[in-house]
Amino acid sequence: MKENQVAIVAGCDSQFRKNTERSIFDIALESCISLFKDKNGKISKDGIDGIIFSSCTDEQYTAAILSEMLGLKPKITLRLDNLCNSGSNAIISAYSYIVSGLCESVLVIGAEKTQTSGKRLVWDITRGSFSYPIHWASLYAKMHMRKFGTTEEQMAKVVVKNRNNAKKNKNALTYNEDSVSLKDVMESKKISDPIKILECSRICEGSSAVLMVSKKKYREFTDNPIWVKGIGHMTSCASFGNIVDDIFLSSPAKKASDQAYKMADIGPNDIQVAEVHDAFSILEIMAYEDLGLVKNGFGGKYAEQNLITINPRGGLLGMGHPLGTTGISQTVEIYSQLSDRHKRKKNSKKFGLIHNLAAAGTSASVIIMSAE
Amino acid sequence: MKENQVAIVAGCDSQFRKNTERSIFDIALESCISLFKDKNGKISKDGIDGIIFSSCTDEQYTAAILSEMLGLKPKITLRLDNLCNSGSNAIISAYSYIVSGLCESVLVIGAEKTQTSGKRLVWDITRGSFSYPIHWASLYAKMHMRKFGTTEEQMAKVVVKNRNNAKKNKNALTYNEDSVSLKDVMESKKISDPIKILECSRICEGSSAVLMVSKKKYREFTDNPIWVKGIGHMTSCASFGNIVDDIFLSSPAKKASDQAYKMADIGPNDIQVAEVHDAFSILEIMAYEDLGLVKNGFGGKYAEQNLITINPRGGLLGMGHPLGTTGISQTVEIYSQLSDRHKRKKNSKKFGLIHNLAAAGTSASVIIMSAE
Repeated sequence: MKENQVAIVAGCDSQFRKNTERSIFDIALESCISLFKDKNGKISKDGIDGIIFSSCTDEQYTAAILSEMLGLKPKITLRLDNLCNSGSNAIISAYSYIVSGLCESVLVIGAEKTQTSGKRLVWDITRGSFSYPIHWASLYAKMHMRKFGTTEEQMAKVVVKNRNNAKKNKNALTYNEDSVSLKDVMESKKISDPIKILECSRICEGSSAVLMVSKKKYREFTDNPIWVKGIGHMTSCASFGNIVDDIFLSSPAKKASDQAYKMADIGPNDIQVAEVHDAFSILEIMAYEDLGLVKNGFGGKYAEQNLITINPRGGLLGMGHPLGTTGISQTVEIYSQLSDRHKRKKNSKKFGLIHNLAAAGTSASVIIMSAE
Repeated sequence: MKENQVAIVAGCDSQFRKNTERSIFDIALESCISLFKDKNGKISKDGIDGIIFSSCTDEQYTAAILSEMLGLKPKITLRLDNLCNSGSNAIISAYSYIVSGLCESVLVIGAEKTQTSGKRLVWDITRGSFSYPIHWASLYAKMHMRKFGTTEEQMAKVVVKNRNNAKKNKNALTYNEDSVSLKDVMESKKISDPIKILECSRICEGSSAVLMVSKKKYREFTDNPIWVKGIGHMTSCASFGNIVDDIFLSSPAKKASDQAYKMADIGPNDIQVAEVHDAFSILEIMAYEDLGLVKNGFGGKYAEQNLITINPRGGLLGMGHPLGTTGISQTVEIYSQLSDRHKRKKNSKKFGLIHNLAAAGTSASVIIMSAE
């Protein structure tokens, strides 16, 4: 196994909210302030040499503005985006800055407002007038049902699990909402057949922050870091029309997970906990297959088994989906699960994983982490 | 000296234009197509594993869209921005992906439309009602004149040099415009005392593309790569009010150049050609000092000497300034100068450098390159 090079030493979410009048900066600072408090004075003015901000906001110079607001004087500042997998891209970018030696410590921040121009990919005319994400998700669901016999109940079970998990996570958008039963999901309004309203994650506002540091530096922050072990990212195209035929056979998510397993030198059976991109219930079922947790076509059945911990923070369905924040919040959760900070874990976990998608799964990220 | 790790093997600019109706993608593709032609079939569908797009555009999923348009299937896709130094940030990010081992080859693309929300940093209320860049530039010019005796003629000479250089560069915005004399500059309209209209670069549209690859891979593309030898980037803050007092003493540009020289293991005397950020004439004079080409306060005199080649493509003053493109276009020029592709060089050059700023110089990048 390769030497550990990049450690995650802190991670915090803000509360995820429906909508407020706050600026993107106010939202971003909420998770950063939690992280600074958590590190209890260990983060000095010159102690951070990179700030990577993940957001689909239209604001300019955002990472530099955040550095000023936080009183930091970093080397690198930049904002990056890639729609819904902006956050996992930012974690990967931070990894590259540290391994390359350009930075010793990178603060990765994600923040989004509910009103964001990332909601709909207007460029993609292959979607015709079906331009909202639910349209491609409902086609994937119908295809999966037809090809593999996946049922609406199996998809609904994903929602029940994730919403239940979110009831244990005080930062989740749905934390204060009623639990949902299988009957509730099945009887909720159909938005685009077969997908029902309770099977859709909601775009919301929220921020997350993760501190990543070099092997040399981690002891300044913690004795129990979580290491980045494997990284995969793949972009096949940008438009739905170019991905739909291959989506169950050779999706970007399959390729990204292959890369990540290879780099971590492990296989799917080694994963004990995962945060996967469940913007719609069917996507979690597809994720089981893409990650190799189960054979192609058996994702629906896997949803009834709960063999490993999937989406313990509530996934996007329970937590909410602030676009540029999501991949970072997923990382916060796996960091917490592996270090057992939140006591939400079921048993000792060796390897954890995040899986994140953008734009009908045309691009995907997979990141594997471990405490060892 | 450290081992060479990242090679630049191709670089092309589009024509820089005042304004057209083209989309950001059309603009971006212009330089990419030139680069693909230049490499003459050597770039295969699977031969690029990263696309980093630098732009202040409001469009979403831009890097993935460009990958589809170019028929590429990269691993990494992301858009990044940091106002005027977005482009140099993108080059640095590509370097980090390659050195970290996550990518073997990264296509860095910058593109901007003339109408961009990056024109004015509305967030910065320390600028009061003086919210356009010329306001801080005129204050810097007045301060430099008062403290160091720099003259309006010295600043005007920067413009004459750079506009003359742009007359040799067919992609420059001012290529087809009349040459300007010292008298022309001195007698042009004062916009914000002492800065005259000919001393201001113009925001324009244009794109640039650079192909960066690992040591292992460069021979697939060229026998004469240009190596990235030193990198510096520094962010002190984001607002004018927080930088103005220190701007001549300990600017981010000074710190970035210190980092870059240290990493390259050379000093200012080793630099034979540089592209520096001359959004306004005074900034080139400040750059001479920040890069250590001359002592503090002597930048005005240095402008009369032309000891080394500065801004051979015409700088921002002659070339135009499409925000997210600029740092990449600067890199294209130094790549070309060091490999003598454009025959615009004066003599054999060993080390070249780019210097790029954002938002009143609150952040700065310096990148050093060499053929050896």
